[in-house]
Amino acid sequence: MPALCQPLADGQERVQVAKTSPGRQCESHGQIVPTLGYYRRMAETTERRLALLMHGAIQGDGGKMGLGLLRYSEDPIICVIDKESVGQDITALTGIPRPVPIVASVEDAAALGANTLVPAIAPAGGALPPEWRAEVGRALRMGFSLINGLHEKMADAPDMRDALQPGATIYDVRQEPAGLDNSSGLARDLAAKRVLTVGTDMAIGKMTTSLELHAAAKRRGVPSAFVATGQIGICISGAGIPLDAIRVDFAPGAVEKAVLEAAAKIEDQGIIWVEGQGSVLHPASSAWLALIRGSIPTELILCHRIGQERIMRIPWVKIPPLAEVAALYEAICAPIQPAKVVGIALNGGYLPDDDVRAACEAIEAETGLPTTDTVRFGGEKLLDAVLRN
Amino acid sequence: MPALCQPLADGQERVQVAKTSPGRQCESHGQIVPTLGYYRRMAETTERRLALLMHGAIQGDGGKMGLGLLRYSEDPIICVIDKESVGQDITALTGIPRPVPIVASVEDAAALGANTLVPAIAPAGGALPPEWRAEVGRALRMGFSLINGLHEKMADAPDMRDALQPGATIYDVRQEPAGLDNSSGLARDLAAKRVLTVGTDMAIGKMTTSLELHAAAKRRGVPSAFVATGQIGICISGAGIPLDAIRVDFAPGAVEKAVLEAAAKIEDQGIIWVEGQGSVLHPASSAWLALIRGSIPTELILCHRIGQERIMRIPWVKIPPLAEVAALYEAICAPIQPAKVVGIALNGGYLPDDDVRAACEAIEAETGLPTTDTVRFGGEKLLDAVLRN
Repeated sequence: MPALCQPLADGQERVQVAKTSPGRQCESHGQIVPTLGYYRRMAETTERRLALLMHGAIQGDGGKMGLGLLRYSEDPIICVIDKESVGQDITALTGIPRPVPIVASVEDAAALGANTLVPAIAPAGGALPPEWRAEVGRALRMGFSLINGLHEKMADAPDMRDALQPGATIYDVRQEPAGLDNSSGLARDLAAKRVLTVGTDMAIGKMTTSLELHAAAKRRGVPSAFVATGQIGICISGAGIPLDAIRVDFAPGAVEKAVLEAAAKIEDQGIIWVEGQGSVLHPASSAWLALIRGSIPTELILCHRIGQERIMRIPWVKIPPLAEVAALYEAICAPIQPAKVVGIALNGGYLPDDDVRAACEAIEAETGLPTTDTVRFGGEKLLDAVLRN
Repeated sequence: MPALCQPLADGQERVQVAKTSPGRQCESHGQIVPTLGYYRRMAETTERRLALLMHGAIQGDGGKMGLGLLRYSEDPIICVIDKESVGQDITALTGIPRPVPIVASVEDAAALGANTLVPAIAPAGGALPPEWRAEVGRALRMGFSLINGLHEKMADAPDMRDALQPGATIYDVRQEPAGLDNSSGLARDLAAKRVLTVGTDMAIGKMTTSLELHAAAKRRGVPSAFVATGQIGICISGAGIPLDAIRVDFAPGAVEKAVLEAAAKIEDQGIIWVEGQGSVLHPASSAWLALIRGSIPTELILCHRIGQERIMRIPWVKIPPLAEVAALYEAICAPIQPAKVVGIALNGGYLPDDDVRAACEAIEAETGLPTTDTVRFGGEKLLDAVLRN
């Protein structure tokens, strides 16, 4: 399993602090701390066997992290915990072809051999629902490790620290990395393409589209890197920046740094797929702009959910025709570095394939842009559009 | 003097912790902490007599905070510390009609009776230049309090804590307030106008314009509130949000909260002047978007420095014609709530009045928008434009 917590600054490394370590016992266990000799290193070889805590989220809202891990994580997922869907077939419910049992509780997950709990929801505001917190505590007491993608730093919470057992760890994914600075447009000078997914709303498949395009590029032999910018992408890819946990002043700079690091790992003529966030149409969203400014994209892919006409939970915001949305994103890029929306990624949800194909054809006719559902039909069509530009 | 540190969450109050307080001595003095009986309250009546630490910044770059305080602070400013301009006339150098001596060091400032040091620069990245740090330490050792608008939390820094004397305090202005949440567009329902300043670049007078318009509204008897969104505005007005120190996820929500609180203090038909930040043209800037989303402005004022053609220090970014910049800001507002740029505020810097008048006329002819330099000629013209809309 790739490293799951926040990127490390120079001079830091990921350690596990035994509860019996002298001196900093209460402040630091499960935390990123400066390397000190008396801290026992995390056993890098321990296999994580994930249980995804998703009560009500498989068939409801907020299950984005769990579904992302189910679809893309390379770690073994032992089970999903959702008392509302216990015993049901996850592929039938979600369309994701990964045979994972659905159980009722962390106790059931432990019985199946899981050793790492992931609260795999993305609640508004990032707070863990109170009733779930006790269950997380029970899991820690049973010896589970915790991968925490919520804003709250669990490794600092007294109840979590008290519950954590020796040998287990708490990874807080969503903490600002050290050593950030302002951006200065350096990504503009890269030879590699920077392809950013942008959207009509939150939670409509920007990360998924970037991952599918990255996979398509790798299949094609194109040098390719994926830059995760949210906790789910970080959990899937093992690296990246938790953009929404970064201070506004440093947000474009954090993106720039992540893109430059990704560029250093691939050949010049490769493609860096930057995971998009939020939407120009959403009143709670500004992360997408930090992504545009920090990555200085060469191409944009516009993501949209088929049939969606208004912003989720903000029904007074209508989604304009996609060509207008694309033009707005392009206009925002233009003063600094022009970038073109070269294709549209539609999220077909649970619609039949024929309906999705028809929707793609209609949007292509309306916008003149290559359009597909990358999860169903692969990323090749949009990859070609990027390579042609 | 108004309270100078970060806004308080429910259940917190501003306290000074004596160095001899039991238990939390090292962690907390000069900090916001939950109210505890054994902490001695800060003496609210102590008059702050400011010294502005501005080496090289009066005649150079980065003096934005100092010049803002000189122009607008209601606290006594005893002196400015700038060894490159010692003994010179500050009004001659800056055009600000406030007779404040320029001295060479914190020792000179102490001799004049100053008791509170403000590192009054806005360096890129927010870090205190190393050579200044020793001088801040010397001031603290002499018994000064510190008002810190830089990103680093000085109250937590060991060298600062060691230097701080009993009775003095460290105010860290630039810390994220507690209790934030996502925005949901609530500002849209306010009866009060929300007027946001937007700009062609950073550091060109957005805060100043908002303050001048606020002053003009008060002179006119229009119910008026100023919402500070940066450390300088907070130091001047005694309240506000340090937007660039807030996590991306909560930035629009913090703005929304500040605007709703301002609205609660004025009558329905009043005007809320929201201090702008950054620029749509700047690769390091995304705060302006959080301001648009959180405040859902009814009007925009576009700020620009006369004669500036390219972004400062990023010469490859050209400033388009102002009408295009205005149209871009309007296009970004439009999907959520249309807002119009109703006027242009020009920063004439040190140009002669006649040149500034000519520039205003030229921009008015070019854009069809009321245009003025509010610092020279007052905010009335733009206030009228807002009221007419």
